[in-house]
Amino acid sequence: MRQTLQKAPELQVEPWMNAKGDISLESCLGKVVLIEAFQMLCPGCVEHGLPQAQKAYQLFSPDDLVVLGLHSVFEHHAAMGPESLKAFLHEYRVSFPVGVDIPADSGPVPKTMASYELQGTPSLILIDRRGYLRRQKFGAISDLQLGAEIMALIKEEVVDDKSLELGVGQSAKAIKSQSVLCDDQGCRV
Amino acid sequence: MRQTLQKAPELQVEPWMNAKGDISLESCLGKVVLIEAFQMLCPGCVEHGLPQAQKAYQLFSPDDLVVLGLHSVFEHHAAMGPESLKAFLHEYRVSFPVGVDIPADSGPVPKTMASYELQGTPSLILIDRRGYLRRQKFGAISDLQLGAEIMALIKEEVVDDKSLELGVGQSAKAIKSQSVLCDDQGCRV
Amino acid sequence: MRQTLQKAPELQVEPWMNAKGDISLESCLGKVVLIEAFQMLCPGCVEHGLPQAQKAYQLFSPDDLVVLGLHSVFEHHAAMGPESLKAFLHEYRVSFPVGVDIPADSGPVPKTMASYELQGTPSLILIDRRGYLRRQKFGAISDLQLGAEIMALIKEEVVDDKSLELGVGQSAKAIKSQSVLCDDQGCRV
Amino acid sequence: MRQTLQKAPELQVEPWMNAKGDISLESCLGKVVLIEAFQMLCPGCVEHGLPQAQKAYQLFSPDDLVVLGLHSVFEHHAAMGPESLKAFLHEYRVSFPVGVDIPADSGPVPKTMASYELQGTPSLILIDRRGYLRRQKFGAISDLQLGAEIMALIKEEVVDDKSLELGVGQSAKAIKSQSVLCDDQGCRV
Repeated sequence: MRQTLQKAPELQVEPWMNAKGDISLESCLGKVVLIEAFQMLCPGCVEHGLPQAQKAYQLFSPDDLVVLGLHSVFEHHAAMGPESLKAFLHEYRVSFPVGVDIPADSGPVPKTMASYELQGTPSLILIDRRGYLRRQKFGAISDLQLGAEIMALIKEEVVDDKSLELGVGQSAKAIKSQSVLCDDQGCRV
Repeated sequence: MRQTLQKAPELQVEPWMNAKGDISLESCLGKVVLIEAFQMLCPGCVEHGLPQAQKAYQLFSPDDLVVLGLHSVFEHHAAMGPESLKAFLHEYRVSFPVGVDIPADSGPVPKTMASYELQGTPSLILIDRRGYLRRQKFGAISDLQLGAEIMALIKEEVVDDKSLELGVGQSAKAIKSQSVLCDDQGCRV
Repeated sequence: MRQTLQKAPELQVEPWMNAKGDISLESCLGKVVLIEAFQMLCPGCVEHGLPQAQKAYQLFSPDDLVVLGLHSVFEHHAAMGPESLKAFLHEYRVSFPVGVDIPADSGPVPKTMASYELQGTPSLILIDRRGYLRRQKFGAISDLQLGAEIMALIKEEVVDDKSLELGVGQSAKAIKSQSVLCDDQGCRV
Repeated sequence: MRQTLQKAPELQVEPWMNAKGDISLESCLGKVVLIEAFQMLCPGCVEHGLPQAQKAYQLFSPDDLVVLGLHSVFEHHAAMGPESLKAFLHEYRVSFPVGVDIPADSGPVPKTMASYELQGTPSLILIDRRGYLRRQKFGAISDLQLGAEIMALIKEEVVDDKSLELGVGQSAKAIKSQSVLCDDQGCRV
């Protein structure tokens, strides 16, 4: 059965930190993109999600993988403004680009988070070289599995639809269980 | 040689969180007091200092040990205001009383931190049943050593000066090394 | 209510490793004794019990605390003979004295283990300065609690029965919970 | 520049544990093979290497990845015989097949270990679907990197020499640093 892929919605972010100018998914086409959606006061993000994203940022070549942070604040908004985020990124030595998810016109959930229908933070998003959304995961994923999933996308040959379709299937089969390890440190919306 | 003990300077704190009303060291006389000086955006505090203080709060009887947090902000002041601290304590489930160290009239170091001449955060302070400052430590201390030091103070009989003096000596001798483990996550002033 | 204390049964051990000659509890009178009962192929012992005993051995003064290992093999006897134990202690850098619990005349449980009625490995035993058995614990105990319990015994003044009795009471009160954390890595008999 | 690949030497193992009958690399052709060379009394193997291999065994499909343990004893031979190994595998819940590297006719290094010229334990070996040796690593490798390297080999299309050559190159480029993290728990020959 053919799996229908969706284009990853464009980021709605302002401002970017640790970056020279704005970053769009459009501009990342041709590379795999890892997005770590987090809140700076979310313990699961600080202990697991952000260190994992930082490791991926250090391990993979920037020609193959783009790592982006997405600060999707849906609670304690006053406590996690841009000034606080900036200090946080400095103290925790987060060196990859981080964008602030733009607050909604109404309601607590910011715009990008809503467009991806994220369940909470931390959430991991993987986008393939052609801009298709391939993975979206709330809570923790093991380093071993993440490394495998990133590489599966990196190794996809972007020749035509047929090769992509095969790639998806092979990746899914190669990993046995995709069980979610949602500990109590994940923050659901 | 007799060790000269100093009275622990009174806390200069406003406001208190996780507390019913204000707390003074004066009101803790008769109990051992552990003060965990921290900043909410200090990685060493989040990873080590605060969880350790929380464990001590859960382990020891409140009749013997008072555990207090002291939010001594000396950098990124705008990022760590009371609103942010309140959200932080909630998300990280810090349940012992935490007081905000009052900012200095001039300079970045707040008043209590200055009166104790703390080197940075996290810093651990131990005060005996009679209000004397017995231990002040910047950086990490092992759980094994902290448990031993707290109990040494708890077991001191507060009869007269002579017994106190003996107590100090015995405690010092019982622990071989008091080496400081200052990793790079401690934030010096 | 007065707590009745029992004298700790003498060790039945042969041979000793990491030691100059044999060690008896009799010869340790005047000091607190920590005994770590373990099996070299017990994961909970290797991950938790032995490293904790090693930390206690390094932290406390040998004038106050004696740390002893007790290799109480009750399963896989052929796999954990003296030759294997010797290599294990070398590879894991266990530097405190370790004695081999003497096999029973019949049955799998060795003699010292039987006399203490240990439930399995790892088990922690604390003996006070006068040779009384004060603590016996199967499974894991936190470093914070162990440090406190050791120091409570170190600080007991060995003057007469009355002071001992008070000491026991005070120690029990000072620690709120003595809940057992038996994870699946502890090996029950 | 074209990288010259070597066929992985056949295993010289007797007996196999956790296996139905003997296993040869020949019989694994068509699948990626991960070999974890270890000694049961090597702390780095127990803490890092074996748990990592077990995780890989659980994560990847057996149609794509074969995980094998290789007990390559080069010291303390008397302490790590087959009886001891059997108890060890049971206690540590190692569930993938483990083979005992056959002792050399002379010298301490066993035969398979010698043929691969392993530096010590733990060592990780990765073999591609066609039986070529692709990775050999003494000491620790991160889970993130291992997951990526395994998947890179899984995704290689085994069509002809040309595709293999491309595959190797892409994999090498996708991972920035292949720095060795040899901590003091690795045991060099």
